[in-house]
Amino acid sequence: MVGPFGGITAATLLRAAEQHPGRLGDPLALTVNFAGPVADGPFEITATPVRTNRSTQHWSITLTQDGTVATTATAVFGTGRPTWSATEIARPDVGAPEDVPVRPSPGHVAFVDNYEIRFVEGALPDGVSTARPDSTTTLWVRDAPARPLDHTALAALCDVFYPRVLLRTGRFVPAGTVSLTTYFHADAARLAEQGDRPVLGTARAGAFGHGFFDQSARLWGRDGALLATSHQWVYFKD
Amino acid sequence: MVGPFGGITAATLLRAAEQHPGRLGDPLALTVNFAGPVADGPFEITATPVRTNRSTQHWSITLTQDGTVATTATAVFGTGRPTWSATEIARPDVGAPEDVPVRPSPGHVAFVDNYEIRFVEGALPDGVSTARPDSTTTLWVRDAPARPLDHTALAALCDVFYPRVLLRTGRFVPAGTVSLTTYFHADAARLAEQGDRPVLGTARAGAFGHGFFDQSARLWGRDGALLATSHQWVYFKD
Repeated sequence: MVGPFGGITAATLLRAAEQHPGRLGDPLALTVNFAGPVADGPFEITATPVRTNRSTQHWSITLTQDGTVATTATAVFGTGRPTWSATEIARPDVGAPEDVPVRPSPGHVAFVDNYEIRFVEGALPDGVSTARPDSTTTLWVRDAPARPLDHTALAALCDVFYPRVLLRTGRFVPAGTVSLTTYFHADAARLAEQGDRPVLGTARAGAFGHGFFDQSARLWGRDGALLATSHQWVYFKD
Repeated sequence: MVGPFGGITAATLLRAAEQHPGRLGDPLALTVNFAGPVADGPFEITATPVRTNRSTQHWSITLTQDGTVATTATAVFGTGRPTWSATEIARPDVGAPEDVPVRPSPGHVAFVDNYEIRFVEGALPDGVSTARPDSTTTLWVRDAPARPLDHTALAALCDVFYPRVLLRTGRFVPAGTVSLTTYFHADAARLAEQGDRPVLGTARAGAFGHGFFDQSARLWGRDGALLATSHQWVYFKD
């Protein structure tokens, strides 16, 4: 793993577009490409609305450090309207957040201390684990300290699941996200309803091979609302 | 649906990067944002390698028409290497392509005539259909006329599934892809093994609401190899 937690990079790029005075509506889709590590120190983000339509707006976003491109992104913002709705994928059948303990800080990964995580299934291997036949992790998570959920925080949360190759192999192999795409099902009103309650998240890999794999995540809010779906392409070494 | 088949736009942008003399390796990840319709007529594509690392290369790609941005994209190319491999998601349990008939041309959607499609499940509603509880479509598909599969053709194939909202509602409501992300699990050697044989594809929606939904697709090749996974965010009107 090189550079900081990918989720905070994604959230920071999204926030740059959100703060632009010409911004239209809420985030709908975000793709962040981790082209190189971001070092501790100053960086610059350029967020450009490349095309604004009646109900959607397309963004190009770039993070540079010392004149070198470290991260690129595209985002779609837009305004929704009431339509027929249905959630087709199933929320994991789990109990309440209080049914599972908060994971103690592992100490060695800084970003984890910014989250209150309760593993329901598929906790991070502790170094003496063995391989598993399935890479699923299901957990409850919220910011630590707790604060109301917004799209920026949701963008970061989608990357809170560590690389699935660690769980499948049971070994701490080097791995890092190459590209991360998130779809925001929740609008600002839905996120306001969520408040600072824990979010239920689940993640699983698709397939591993020739140094890369994909993984997908789903984040669920109160009343069984799907808040976001997210997908990433990850590099690994074995 | 506005503009041409999104798959051909995605493939055309990917091809622009593939043809660049500085291109490194094979496509790994591609995100295409459909900012506006592409009209019949000339267009320009600018494909820029914004950062080249040892084993990955990050691209920014833009299609303009009459000076207006119609499509933006980012792509990651790279070189794989032999590693541990495993396919975790399950291939649909279906028979041979020959077990199901080729769909006759519907006549009114031009792009469909460029594909030989055999529906296993979830064929396009014929206008007298009713709503369904599940949006899954599973089909066999290859180019028509048949030709060997390459990454460009695979990029287009990932968009061959029409918008899931049509199947769920049983009605031809207006719908169009806003953003499309594809992960290429197959390298050039694997695609060469596939040749011009039909590919097995399956697609399903996640959730529909406030004028948008997400859908995910998986494409499988011979010997049960996962060729690509793909996700998209789609606009619809009801």
